[in-house]
Amino acid sequence: MTRKEFRDLATPDEARAAIDSLALEGGIERVPLENARGRVLVARLDAELDVPGFDRASLDGYALRARDTFGADEADPARLAVVGEVHAGAEPDVALEAGQAAEISTGAVMPDGADAMVPVERTDTDGGGDEVLVRTAVAPGDNVMFAGADVAAGERALGPGTTITPRDIGLLSALGIDEVPVRAKPRVGIVSTGDELVRPGDDLESERGEIYDVNSYTIAAGVEDAGGEAVLYPHAGDEQDEMEGILRTAADECDLVLSSGSTSASAVDVIYRVIDEQGELLLHGVSIKPGKPMLIGRLDDSAYVGLPGYPVSAMMVFRTFVAPAIREAAGRPEPASATVSGRLARQERYEEGRHRLMPVGVVTDGDGETLVYPVDKGSGATTSLADADGVVEVGPETDYLEAGESVTVTLFSPDVRPPTLFGVGEDDPTVSRVLDGLERPRYLSVGSRPGLRRLREGVPDVAVVAGPLDRDIEADEIGRWDREWGLVVRAGNPDEIEGLDDLVDRDLRFVNRTTDSGLRSSLGASIADVAEKRGTDRHEIVDAVDGFDLGLRAHESPARKVIAGDADAGLGLRETADRLDLGFVSLGEQPVRVLANPDRTGKEGVRELETVLADAASAKR
Amino acid sequence: MTRKEFRDLATPDEARAAIDSLALEGGIERVPLENARGRVLVARLDAELDVPGFDRASLDGYALRARDTFGADEADPARLAVVGEVHAGAEPDVALEAGQAAEISTGAVMPDGADAMVPVERTDTDGGGDEVLVRTAVAPGDNVMFAGADVAAGERALGPGTTITPRDIGLLSALGIDEVPVRAKPRVGIVSTGDELVRPGDDLESERGEIYDVNSYTIAAGVEDAGGEAVLYPHAGDEQDEMEGILRTAADECDLVLSSGSTSASAVDVIYRVIDEQGELLLHGVSIKPGKPMLIGRLDDSAYVGLPGYPVSAMMVFRTFVAPAIREAAGRPEPASATVSGRLARQERYEEGRHRLMPVGVVTDGDGETLVYPVDKGSGATTSLADADGVVEVGPETDYLEAGESVTVTLFSPDVRPPTLFGVGEDDPTVSRVLDGLERPRYLSVGSRPGLRRLREGVPDVAVVAGPLDRDIEADEIGRWDREWGLVVRAGNPDEIEGLDDLVDRDLRFVNRTTDSGLRSSLGASIADVAEKRGTDRHEIVDAVDGFDLGLRAHESPARKVIAGDADAGLGLRETADRLDLGFVSLGEQPVRVLANPDRTGKEGVRELETVLADAASAKR
Repeated sequence: MTRKEFRDLATPDEARAAIDSLALEGGIERVPLENARGRVLVARLDAELDVPGFDRASLDGYALRARDTFGADEADPARLAVVGEVHAGAEPDVALEAGQAAEISTGAVMPDGADAMVPVERTDTDGGGDEVLVRTAVAPGDNVMFAGADVAAGERALGPGTTITPRDIGLLSALGIDEVPVRAKPRVGIVSTGDELVRPGDDLESERGEIYDVNSYTIAAGVEDAGGEAVLYPHAGDEQDEMEGILRTAADECDLVLSSGSTSASAVDVIYRVIDEQGELLLHGVSIKPGKPMLIGRLDDSAYVGLPGYPVSAMMVFRTFVAPAIREAAGRPEPASATVSGRLARQERYEEGRHRLMPVGVVTDGDGETLVYPVDKGSGATTSLADADGVVEVGPETDYLEAGESVTVTLFSPDVRPPTLFGVGEDDPTVSRVLDGLERPRYLSVGSRPGLRRLREGVPDVAVVAGPLDRDIEADEIGRWDREWGLVVRAGNPDEIEGLDDLVDRDLRFVNRTTDSGLRSSLGASIADVAEKRGTDRHEIVDAVDGFDLGLRAHESPARKVIAGDADAGLGLRETADRLDLGFVSLGEQPVRVLANPDRTGKEGVRELETVLADAASAKR
Repeated sequence: MTRKEFRDLATPDEARAAIDSLALEGGIERVPLENARGRVLVARLDAELDVPGFDRASLDGYALRARDTFGADEADPARLAVVGEVHAGAEPDVALEAGQAAEISTGAVMPDGADAMVPVERTDTDGGGDEVLVRTAVAPGDNVMFAGADVAAGERALGPGTTITPRDIGLLSALGIDEVPVRAKPRVGIVSTGDELVRPGDDLESERGEIYDVNSYTIAAGVEDAGGEAVLYPHAGDEQDEMEGILRTAADECDLVLSSGSTSASAVDVIYRVIDEQGELLLHGVSIKPGKPMLIGRLDDSAYVGLPGYPVSAMMVFRTFVAPAIREAAGRPEPASATVSGRLARQERYEEGRHRLMPVGVVTDGDGETLVYPVDKGSGATTSLADADGVVEVGPETDYLEAGESVTVTLFSPDVRPPTLFGVGEDDPTVSRVLDGLERPRYLSVGSRPGLRRLREGVPDVAVVAGPLDRDIEADEIGRWDREWGLVVRAGNPDEIEGLDDLVDRDLRFVNRTTDSGLRSSLGASIADVAEKRGTDRHEIVDAVDGFDLGLRAHESPARKVIAGDADAGLGLRETADRLDLGFVSLGEQPVRVLANPDRTGKEGVRELETVLADAASAKR
């Protein structure tokens, strides 16, 4: 089988043009007024009636003939006979003649013969209520809202293309309109592919390489954000007949079909074949990073776009190419694009001449200026975007961006507000709890060592470092506590493990943490003690511990290996062992330090963190 | 009965504090992941598993031991035995030893013994596929995403208070989470009051002073915009027992009850009594304009706010005081407030020392600067807000704002984009159609004369003027056409009306347009002709026409009076008569001119209008 991909990559503009050539419009539907908010009107609505539909009293008071008040003032009020009363919602049963007035409530119909009204505050009653003294002169029309003064019958009320706001709903209500013709939301079918994908909520068999389906739900949320209606289709395996069946069902029921999910070449091949042989293939492969493997075409009466398999790529391609087309079809205006300018925190080099969409985070430095840093956990990562605030676009001709260079970030949405505090470092339960007390913090659990390195490089506000500090660092310690670390073992410690010596001497399976972790530093020191005590080399001790080299990144992962029966002991915290109802063999306490960039100690988020840390410390005491 | 209102008006800050003291929170609910977008997390979510859950191949290629590739390059590839194959979604059935490799697909589980992989592009097969030649050296870990590298078990995933974005949904999916605990939307009951109110869609009896209920739907849309759930309660009359019953039902079912709708003093009194006697009254009357009559209190376990009856007042009070409280309760961040600065187009004077919320429109002038003009159709108007872009707040100490003074407009939402074209003038069907061809035009049908006046004052871009131009005006004519005007009569003209003479000489009921209308100017000229022909005074002719003084604002209203049987003839257009299947007696043609402010002829919206007008004119020919 031959595929056109990679032979002849399309430019981003060509991809945009190809998507624009697909008709995604979902037609017209009529919705009740109460569901019309945010929908887009397809036709002009003219007023079919006058609003108000009658000459209306604007205040509580007296309807009268203006002529009868000429010359009246506080000193010399006009005296009129009160001949009736008109309430809101009632038809007047009086008609006024010269010298007469009628009591009238706000919103009531002006009686025949009256051409103005006087508010009750400018009147007094007399003659047992049979007469009214009017202490002011009024002109014809005063305090009366004439029929049609608000909206007149035949007037253009709302034009086609109007996105209906609550204010427009007010206007439509006033016109008595209880149903409006709006653009139907484009129906977007999402076909998830790949044998390895499991729906969230179902059980995962990691040993088989199963992973949760990230793209389907993420893209569905993106579709709804853009004004479309997302329809999730059941997981499609990599078998061609099954895939074709699902794609055709989706094409039949939707205006646009997106396939997404699999990174496997065979799944992609199968989809490629279905579209190429059964539909029409417009474009395959775009010179963009991330996002190269993109497919644009038609199947039956539906448009089709194949998204890359990796979640970050899929979402970036969706945002850049597909979401604007859905918005266009939904009649939604492009969202007010919020941008932020800032200095790039570090040099970035680009190896390939592809248009690049670089997810970035932003952080405010000590001078209130914006620093922009790339967020990249590798192409398979799912969380990069949750840790990012927006995107910097870099053209294919750019080989590198210098540190300090000014760049413009398009925020993911105008509502994105950068974190108040940016922390990095050790993964620690106390840190998690402390962060809960802050508004919009961002914390990346990169481990103590990388945290320290990043703090030195000047991007984050604070680093959390556990274990011994092996060298001086220019930073302000704004918080510190101790945590008990050791070996997490099975509940009740059935193997009767007492310490590191057991791991060295007995046939026990151990699970370690990576060298990034502060726990690992403390373990290293203890191992050195054991070696010294035994008068041997550190390496011999390490080699004797089965699993010492298996370093896991997460602070709970070793404990979970113990629960799963894959290990007898794991490096961890007493707090973790307690929380997971496991046994624990203490190996000591280690300090956890919160270190702040000295330039940022005045920053509000840092000061708040300091306060919360102080509160937490005093609560412990 | 005594009411506290107006004796002791609260300040806006006191009103805010009173609303803040009401607890509107709706508690916690669990929603499926697919409905989680935009909801607010109430608890921290930690990762319960590693993502990925296994060491994962990042590319298609070969899993191997890095050590076996040391020194390999294009010239001297490493030769390894291919001992198996691992697919995504399958458990590896091989374990590698030194010198061995396994074919592996993107996303598949790394087999035991392998510590790196090489992409297929850097390999060749040999020995009938039994061997692979590796043309590059790799280090341990290359092209492998280790278990937990994306998210590690125990790691803090999302903090409390997070508003869930599609990107967060990606993260939650990856963690297998299919349900999340979020803040319940505060339930807001809306009780519509006032005997004169009719639901949109139902029949209206204007002669009884009935009007459509504007507030209920408008406020409901505002509630949903703010993140609440709106519940509409059936129309409540002004009878105390009925009102109390409905308010109590709403209080029982909702976190907040809003009453709204009526401007009638008796309906307001009844509500006041219910809250004051049965609940708790915190505040009555706020020193703000519009919005003074506002009620804040509690009823049973619910918060209660009584909104003013006039729609514009109700919406402004809702926006200013209630919406922020609903957002707060929903855990929604304040929307990024979009503001625009501009020069005030005309002087504004304030008579009372109240905090003022002034609805304004904005328009770009010829120099690209923003002009801000107040939108005010009077307190009973429903459409003011649909014609406005935002609000200028003016403190109670300010007596007036000068024309040209710089003011800041808070847009109704960050999505509000000011109109591309601002036109005023004659209401005309051709104008309506032309506007349909433009994006985001604003057109106020104020009539020809006021339109001309406003154009002279320099606010709108264009004015549409029908009929004779009585004096020179400095403006560029960018479009012109003729329209046929005359008398709209019953279908088939059963009264055999032939012209104005019939209205003068016979007992026929006529309906006129206001003097603002261009039609009225042409009628005036014809009346003068009739007078001259008869050798009499113009006033005599006018007095002889029954209904000459009854001038309606809307171009279709006279025709509608004819349909309703309230008149025998009405001033109108042939187009209107044709559209409504009525008879027509032509009295002539009159020009309609589109006049542009000479400073704005270069403005894009004006140029677009000119193009659309030219297209419409050539289509007619």
